[in-house]
Parts: sequence; structure tokens; C-alpha cells
Amino acid sequence: MRTLLGLAPDLASRVEAVDRIIESALSSDSKHLARPRDHILATRGKGLRPALVILWASSTSPDPGADGDRDLAAMEVAAAAELIHMASLVHDDVIDGSTTRRGRDTLNALFGARPSVLLGDFLFARAFELLARHRSFGVVELMTDAISAMCEGELEQAACAFSCDGCEDAYLRRITLKTARLIAACCHAGAEIGGAASGDAAKAREHGLELGIAFQLTDDALDFVADSRELGKPTCQDLACGVLTLPVLRLLAHESLGPRARDIIEARRFDPQSVSWVRSAVVECGGVDMTYERARQSIDRAMACISHLPAGPARDALVAITQQVIARRR
Amino acid sequence: MRTLLGLAPDLASRVEAVDRIIESALSSDSKHLARPRDHILATRGKGLRPALVILWASSTSPDPGADGDRDLAAMEVAAAAELIHMASLVHDDVIDGSTTRRGRDTLNALFGARPSVLLGDFLFARAFELLARHRSFGVVELMTDAISAMCEGELEQAACAFSCDGCEDAYLRRITLKTARLIAACCHAGAEIGGAASGDAAKAREHGLELGIAFQLTDDALDFVADSRELGKPTCQDLACGVLTLPVLRLLAHESLGPRARDIIEARRFDPQSVSWVRSAVVECGGVDMTYERARQSIDRAMACISHLPAGPARDALVAITQQVIARRR
Repeated sequence: MRTLLGLAPDLASRVEAVDRIIESALSSDSKHLARPRDHILATRGKGLRPALVILWASSTSPDPGADGDRDLAAMEVAAAAELIHMASLVHDDVIDGSTTRRGRDTLNALFGARPSVLLGDFLFARAFELLARHRSFGVVELMTDAISAMCEGELEQAACAFSCDGCEDAYLRRITLKTARLIAACCHAGAEIGGAASGDAAKAREHGLELGIAFQLTDDALDFVADSRELGKPTCQDLACGVLTLPVLRLLAHESLGPRARDIIEARRFDPQSVSWVRSAVVECGGVDMTYERARQSIDRAMACISHLPAGPARDALVAITQQVIARRR
Repeated sequence: MRTLLGLAPDLASRVEAVDRIIESALSSDSKHLARPRDHILATRGKGLRPALVILWASSTSPDPGADGDRDLAAMEVAAAAELIHMASLVHDDVIDGSTTRRGRDTLNALFGARPSVLLGDFLFARAFELLARHRSFGVVELMTDAISAMCEGELEQAACAFSCDGCEDAYLRRITLKTARLIAACCHAGAEIGGAASGDAAKAREHGLELGIAFQLTDDALDFVADSRELGKPTCQDLACGVLTLPVLRLLAHESLGPRARDIIEARRFDPQSVSWVRSAVVECGGVDMTYERARQSIDRAMACISHLPAGPARDALVAITQQVIARRR
């Protein structure tokens, strides 16, 4: 994300400083912690969440570098947000038994459940140490609420696994809880740190929510059309876990293709041939196109939430990130 | 613990208030979170950690009720400490695949790994929300350090599982990390909140460390001599997981009984007959007595750390807790 954005130098240096804060927060003398930690650091993602904290914190201020306290708060809260995201991914991989993420073996595959669960806890603890330093911006509550939402969303998703009668609204609610709320918290936290007025902080939050929804919709579409090597993880993974995403819900609602899809899913018959049929049918029935269309709606709403921002490099970067979320191929 | 101590009314009311803070901190509209949460609340332990926060906070002040801010801090930090402990137990049960704790099914046995991992994360998040409110007492760092130590201790323990060449020092280091450091953090946090001078805070910390070591030693002895119904979990559980505790280390060092124990453990031959032999041999070689003796040394040291406290109900309760840790049968 960072390299693709072409951030202005002062923004880029702040986003890069987040990496050093993360590394420093995770320093430990324990050799047993060091190996799983190093693997997690080496397989980090694109840094969407920390970038959003930094950019929203910079977006409302004409001279973001002028206030050292707010600047440090933005970078440390950005680091905490990334640590929380990393912890949740590590724990997700244990729960789902996933072996590949971002083209690399997961921690769970390499080291097993014990180091994965424990390292996740360690990441959470370090995140909250960073957040507590800047409690006055309300960031602790924003992030703990987001964690509660993630847990809730994951449990709701598991509770309705393989259930072919789910509706689109319930799906949107789930992806809001499990993905969008943390991204919304990042934008909201950034705006609070940047000193935004309450109406503007609400817009930042809405930007994050819509961006997060579009992000997850794109993820769910890519699961059916991406190349697994490019995606860095196996495709159609959700389907095998019984997670019925929007493309599948559209297929299930399709008059002629729906009944066979329902048979396969309810019987949990996920042999390669059946999965391949579902994959083609999802595309054929327009499930993927319709999911991208719904993601585009969220992107339009997200763009509307940044239109009021003063022109400048932070706004430019927010526009670029917002457009990129839906254009990405992995 | 609470009911056994016969706490003075004002201390008892503060310890009881911790329960209400915990329940309120875990309130959630999600029905998916509610069921695992209610199970965890219904199977809570004796509340050693929150009691230590409250008692240490009250021990240095002649009139502990007079300062409302410190009073609230003690209760909320006590609640956070208990939430951290609960989270770590829930995650431990996932890692170890344990099905019984405190005479009841574990969350893992009833609901599976997913709700267990996620509920643990939810508990951590809520704990840190409470801690952040009282950051000025240094409690966030104390608790995050303790969590890091727990993770480190658990990983170290896993790394040397089934290794019969471990020494007593390494064992003591492990139980310090995985058990005693959180208990030490509770005492230390309480003393800081109570306004203790730095030397007194160090004594509080040492009290917690020695108490925690004695607590774990007693646990490890009970694993061989307790009745499993009274203990609320299967006995000899550590052995089957390859966790070689002090009683077993003594057996392994025994001239005539040691070699057979080593054969059984290295071959991981844990049929009922072999386990029964190890259990008897641990007692016969003096492993259990010697473990209790080592626990008693730690209790003596812990008692020395509270001898300077002004006479009063808080000190009386600390003395009672300290003596009880080693006398307990579950």
C-alpha cells in the first residue's frame, strides 16, 4: 500500500516510523517469543490501518508536523492498530486452521496453536500499552469496541456457517463487525488525534466503515476470481469453512443454479469438482459482478466522507487508498 | 478465598464490588458472546488476584476508604487483573485441549476453540479498557509485562516438554514467568495505588512473587496427591503433557526409581498403570514433601514482606491469604 501510494515525504516518514515503533514494542529477551514474532514481522501486510490513522490525523491540520504530541500519538496509535490487526489474524489462523496467508506459511502452520495463541496475546498486550499512553484521545475505547465487534462478528459468522437461508443484510452486518469496525476505529482515532470537530470525526468513522465494507466485499469477490498464487492464499477458502459470502448468496438466490449450490453446501460436498462448479456458477450468475458493484457503492460513500477535507497530501493519499481498495487483486 | 478469609466489612464490600465491575465490563448485546461469557462468569475462581490488589492498596493507608479515586482505581485494576487471569486460563485450555477445570467443563470442551480464543481476546480488551483509566499508577505496564512473562513462560515450558534433563532452577524460572509474575503485578499495582513508598512497592512485588511461586508449587504437588474430584480437574495432567514439575524432577534424580521414570516419560508411555506407578513413586521418593517444603520457604519469604505493614484488617487478610495458599487442597 505504502509504496503504491507515492506519499508525500513527511507523510511517508511518519508511516515508516510506525514500523520502528512496532518493532520496538515487540522487543523481548525471550528466544521462545523471538522466532514466532520475527515470522509475524516478516509477513506483515500492506499497513492499511496504520496509514489511515496517520492520514486522518494529518488531514484536518494545516501543518501536521507542528504538534509533536499529536504526531507521536498518531504514530503510536497507528502501531497499536496494526498490532491489534496482526493479533486478530494470528488468532483467526488458529481458529480456522489456515496454513497459508500472504503467500507464506502461517504461524499456526509453522509453530502450531500454542505459540500462535500466545503470540496473539503478546501482540494485544503491547498494543494496549501503546494505546494507554494516548488515552486522552479516547483511543482505548475505540479500539476495545472494535475488538469486541471483531469477536462478535467472528462468532456470528461461525454460528450461521453452512446456513443457506442467510440474507444480504445479515452478511453486511457480519462483515461490518469483523472487518469494518476496526478500520472505522482507525479513521476515527486519527481524526480525534488530529483535533477534528465532532461532525468531522463522525465522517472519518463513516469513511472507515464504508472502506472496510468495500475491502471485505472485494476480498470475498477475489476468493472466487483471483489466482491463488497472486492472492497469497488458497481460493474458495471461505466456502469450505461454510462462510457464505455475498457472491454465494447471489448464487443461492439464482433460479436455475441455486438449488444445486444449496445441495453441495448443505451436504458439505467440497470435492474439487463441486468447488470448481460453484466457482464457475458464482461468476456465471453475476455474483462476483454484483459484489463488486456493492463494493463500488461503499467506495462512493467513502469518497463523499473525504470530499470536505482541505486539499493537500493527506487528502490525496486518502483518495488514493479509497480507490485502491476496490482495484486491488490481492 | 473470599468466604474463607472472614474479611472486615469494608474490605469485603470492596472485593465484592469487583464482581460487579467485571460483570459490567463484560456486558454485550451479542447473544453469541453472551453464552460463553456467562459460562466463564459462572466458573470463576477464588479471586486471589483481585483480593491482593485491594488488600495491598488498603494496607499502607490508615483510612483506605477516605480517597475515592484510589479506591475506585484499586477495584477497577483488581477487576482487570482477574479478567487477564480469566483470559489466560481460557486460552490455556484451548492450547492444552483441557476439558475440565474447577469441576466443570471448560469453555473449550463446551463450545470449541473458536469461542474460547475469541472470548479470551474480548476479556483482554475489556481488562485494558479498565486499566487505561488508571494509567497514572503505572498499572498498564505492570500488567502488560506480566502478560509477556506468561506467554514467555508457557512457550519455555512447551519447548522443554518431556525433557528429563531439566534442572530445578529452570523449573522455578518457568513457574515465576507463567504464574508468579501476574500475582506479583497485582501486589505491586495495589501498593502503587495505595501510595506506597518505592521500597514498600518492591516488598509488595516480592510478596506476590514468592506467593505465586508457592501457589504454583502447591498446585504441582496437588497434581500428584489430590483427589481429582476435590481438585476439580484430572490429576497427573501435567505429566501427560510432558510438563515436568518439581515432584517429577525429584523422582528423576532418585537413584533407584529415577531410571524407570525416565523410560516412561521419554517413551511417553502414559497408560494408566505407568501413570499410577509414577504417581506412587513421586510420593515415595519424597518429591511431594520436598515440593511442599520449597513452597513453605517461599511462604516464609512472603510473610517477611508483609511484616512491616501497619497492624489492621488489610494486613490480617494478607497474612491469612499467604498462609492459605499452601494449605489449600484444590
